[in-house]
Amino acid sequence: MTTKVLPLLEPEAVAACCPPLSERPLTAEEAERTAVMFKALGDPVRLRLFSAVASHEGGEACVCDISDVGVSQPTVSHHLKKLKDAGLLSSERRGTWVYYRVEPAVLAAMGALLTRAGSA
Amino acid sequence: MTTKVLPLLEPEAVAACCPPLSERPLTAEEAERTAVMFKALGDPVRLRLFSAVASHEGGEACVCDISDVGVSQPTVSHHLKKLKDAGLLSSERRGTWVYYRVEPAVLAAMGALLTRAGSA
Repeated sequence: MTTKVLPLLEPEAVAACCPPLSERPLTAEEAERTAVMFKALGDPVRLRLFSAVASHEGGEACVCDISDVGVSQPTVSHHLKKLKDAGLLSSERRGTWVYYRVEPAVLAAMGALLTRAGSA
Repeated sequence: MTTKVLPLLEPEAVAACCPPLSERPLTAEEAERTAVMFKALGDPVRLRLFSAVASHEGGEACVCDISDVGVSQPTVSHHLKKLKDAGLLSSERRGTWVYYRVEPAVLAAMGALLTRAGSA
C-alpha cells in the first residue's frame, strides 16, 4: 500500500491574508479570497461534514467514517472536495480511501478575521 | 426627528447555539442555523460591506457612508439587508438614513465556532 500526499493549498497565504474585519475595510482582492472560505461553510451539509471531520478521532476522517448526514456518499465526496478547494481541509490518499483533515491555520485565520480589532 | 429602533434578531440565541466545530459533529438543526451566518459572509461584496460597517467610526454606518465598493446604492442596501437577516448586523432608522451596526455577540459566536476544541 503506497501513501500519496496530495498537494495542499497554502494555509499560510490565507493566514497572512487579512486583518480582523473590524480593523479596516477589506480590499476587493482580500474579500474575494476570504469569501471563498465563508461560502464553503455556508451550506448546512458542508458545515456538518466539516464538523464531523474536525471532531473525528485523530482529527481526520474518510468518507467511510461520515455516513450519517443524510446524503449519498458521492454527495459527501463532492462537498468534501469543495471544502478542500476552499483550503479548509487537506486530504491524503491511503489505500482505498482518501482521508480528510482540518487545516488548523486556515481555521485560525478565519477566527482571527472575526475577532474585534483593538478591544474585546 | 424620531428615533425608531428596529427589532433585532436575538444574538444570544446564536451565541448559545453551537459548540466549536471541532468538539462534536453539529446536528442538522445546528448546521441549518449556523450556515446562514457563514453564507451571509460568503459573498465578496457583502464581506466588504460588513467590514466597512465593522470598521467605520463609531462602529456604525449608513448606506451614505459606504459607497466605494463598486456597486449601486440599491445593491448595497440589498446586501446590508441580507447581513441583517442573517443576524450579523442590527439597524436603526434615524431620520432619512438607516444605520447599521455589527452584532458583537454574533461575531463572537462565529469566532467561537472556529476555535479548536480543547487545545490551541
